[in-house]
Amino acid sequence: MLGNCLENVREKSPLVHNITNYVTVNDVANALLACGGSPIMSDEPCDVEDITSICGGLNINIGTLNKNSIEGMFIAGKKSNELGHVVLLDPVGAGASKLRTDTAIKLMNEIKFDIIRGNISEIKTLSLGYGTTKGVDADEADTVTKENLDKMIDFAKGFSKKTSSIIAITGAIDLVADSEKCYVIYNGVPQMSRITGTGCQLSSVATAFAIANPLDKLKAVAAAVCMMGLAGEIGYKNLKVGEGNSTLRNRIIDAIYNMDADSLNKGAKYEVR
Amino acid sequence: MLGNCLENVREKSPLVHNITNYVTVNDVANALLACGGSPIMSDEPCDVEDITSICGGLNINIGTLNKNSIEGMFIAGKKSNELGHVVLLDPVGAGASKLRTDTAIKLMNEIKFDIIRGNISEIKTLSLGYGTTKGVDADEADTVTKENLDKMIDFAKGFSKKTSSIIAITGAIDLVADSEKCYVIYNGVPQMSRITGTGCQLSSVATAFAIANPLDKLKAVAAAVCMMGLAGEIGYKNLKVGEGNSTLRNRIIDAIYNMDADSLNKGAKYEVR
Amino acid sequence: MLGNCLENVREKSPLVHNITNYVTVNDVANALLACGGSPIMSDEPCDVEDITSICGGLNINIGTLNKNSIEGMFIAGKKSNELGHVVLLDPVGAGASKLRTDTAIKLMNEIKFDIIRGNISEIKTLSLGYGTTKGVDADEADTVTKENLDKMIDFAKGFSKKTSSIIAITGAIDLVADSEKCYVIYNGVPQMSRITGTGCQLSSVATAFAIANPLDKLKAVAAAVCMMGLAGEIGYKNLKVGEGNSTLRNRIIDAIYNMDADSLNKGAKYEVR
Repeated sequence: MLGNCLENVREKSPLVHNITNYVTVNDVANALLACGGSPIMSDEPCDVEDITSICGGLNINIGTLNKNSIEGMFIAGKKSNELGHVVLLDPVGAGASKLRTDTAIKLMNEIKFDIIRGNISEIKTLSLGYGTTKGVDADEADTVTKENLDKMIDFAKGFSKKTSSIIAITGAIDLVADSEKCYVIYNGVPQMSRITGTGCQLSSVATAFAIANPLDKLKAVAAAVCMMGLAGEIGYKNLKVGEGNSTLRNRIIDAIYNMDADSLNKGAKYEVR
Repeated sequence: MLGNCLENVREKSPLVHNITNYVTVNDVANALLACGGSPIMSDEPCDVEDITSICGGLNINIGTLNKNSIEGMFIAGKKSNELGHVVLLDPVGAGASKLRTDTAIKLMNEIKFDIIRGNISEIKTLSLGYGTTKGVDADEADTVTKENLDKMIDFAKGFSKKTSSIIAITGAIDLVADSEKCYVIYNGVPQMSRITGTGCQLSSVATAFAIANPLDKLKAVAAAVCMMGLAGEIGYKNLKVGEGNSTLRNRIIDAIYNMDADSLNKGAKYEVR
Repeated sequence: MLGNCLENVREKSPLVHNITNYVTVNDVANALLACGGSPIMSDEPCDVEDITSICGGLNINIGTLNKNSIEGMFIAGKKSNELGHVVLLDPVGAGASKLRTDTAIKLMNEIKFDIIRGNISEIKTLSLGYGTTKGVDADEADTVTKENLDKMIDFAKGFSKKTSSIIAITGAIDLVADSEKCYVIYNGVPQMSRITGTGCQLSSVATAFAIANPLDKLKAVAAAVCMMGLAGEIGYKNLKVGEGNSTLRNRIIDAIYNMDADSLNKGAKYEVR
């Protein structure tokens, strides 16, 4: 059962260092607070070593990268590796520009990531070393479906083996895999794609889950993914006539805030393959 | 009828590159998603050429400009011009500082803008080459009113002729003009001025409308302005006792999300002069 | 009675220059608008002198400082001092990194602050010249409680005397002190700590209150602190089943928007010591 992973987050209140984009950063902070974690943001190269040292883990998101913050990502990542902290990469827009693709790949080469979380187009880009995506959203041609599920699970496991990272590919169906085991997750609603930032929130929350559950990080990340999707379902169900994506955004964070182990256990829809 | 302009946005889902301020960027992304567009944000000079190339248009907003992002604006703008993309300028705070005024004017000199959208003080600053405004809000002395409407329409048309851009001046009464034709728009509620970012949202949404309606960009921008004002009316009408500007902010984006061609046609209040 | 301080803000609509972090900046702007102030954000060194000159005061928040914005803070602070404007320091994360601690202390050495507002760990760091805090939240060991209240009031008054600044220490119990007088404030709910940004909002709002009430800035800051806490109480009371920290965030700003002098007078819980 995944619920105890959430309980551990609420009990340990892990502090997460986020180097993340300025588009969704406020929602990232509030989602992290909602699940019981604690956020700190810092991207300045002169600041990140100290900040990451007092945290339990680091979430690197390249959504609005710039020269200065890229330098911060490498310094913070290396320091976190030294300290044995959890480190997650969210390669936002990898495939959409050379800078994003190259930065993500260089980060993978120089830093050991416990977790890499992205949409399928971003993850494919990392695996191929190049890519073209439609902006920050996944190409439809790449989507994980019931039809290509076996193949995609093999891809996720293979990429996990190659990188020694837990691979989380999120979309209509989510995959969370290490080299041998893959959680296939069916939570979530399509309306979540009309809100910016649920992926960014998930990356930060998944970092907190991995910090608080060091003995089974794979399960912890799967729990975070289920929780986010389930929060989307609850948020969507609670929408009233006239409400739309902005209110849904709030209700998803509210649903995380009100989630407990029991409701996560009951609502999680997944199989292990 | 303006409703079909919205239908075209929903059908084509234009990808808009935003170089915009960090104050309102999240609302910009959600408003764009709400109307059927798709956002990507990037301001790093090394990143913007690639990013803008995969988009249909570019929204440049100088609200929290810095040396690095200014460089990004010029690179992205020139690339967009080369590619024949829609380009919009939102000169936030032009007139409030030399850097903002000079940057906006230099952008106008070096980049061809399809659309310039601002409040009256900002647009006057661009037209005069200098200005003083009270922060990022329009000076009351400058406001478009029923009394000075003829004069202001002439000003908008004249400035459009001079710049070869569609000029959108937003306030209590909004003007959307090319050199010959001016939409005078009466949608909106005064309470929108107690929320940050409705102007920034409109600039991004107007870019999406112009991309999706290439044969009549003037009408497209007018449709975006009507839609934003109408969303303000709907959002304000839906406010309950005890709710204020923060909830209004959410309800406006929700109202865009729920807007369809029919409701836009029925709710749009404008005349063509 | 503190209510007239709010009335003065609504009447004078002070323009506040904010150099603040990108995590909570949108909420800062909307909270300032909610109380009757007007926000402008600018951190670029080439821009801040002009911007701060047209404002009534400056709010410096080091929450996501970088080399460029730090330079902006010093330039804007010195210019504001020259002009006799209200200047507030919010030393977010002082104690959590050398850069933050050093920057905050250097700012205090080179700029005259009318007000310094932070949590107890941040303020202790400034008073000692060094510190260690758990991220951006206060250490529990440091909290102001009924048991240590006398000692903490003495500390706040002493630090005010040393710095010639009004010292606002916020937490479960808030202290707002000059060298001789201390407002001890009991407004607020613990759930506010599960939202990012109520402290940042308060700093900007307190700047507006001090600008609009030049003859008694101490009382003005106390009024701002009471109002923020009272807004938290109202927002929390209005939460419905299933709502959480994201909705609470909105309701707090809404409560500020709807606050009037009378409700502030009735709801403020404080004693003067």
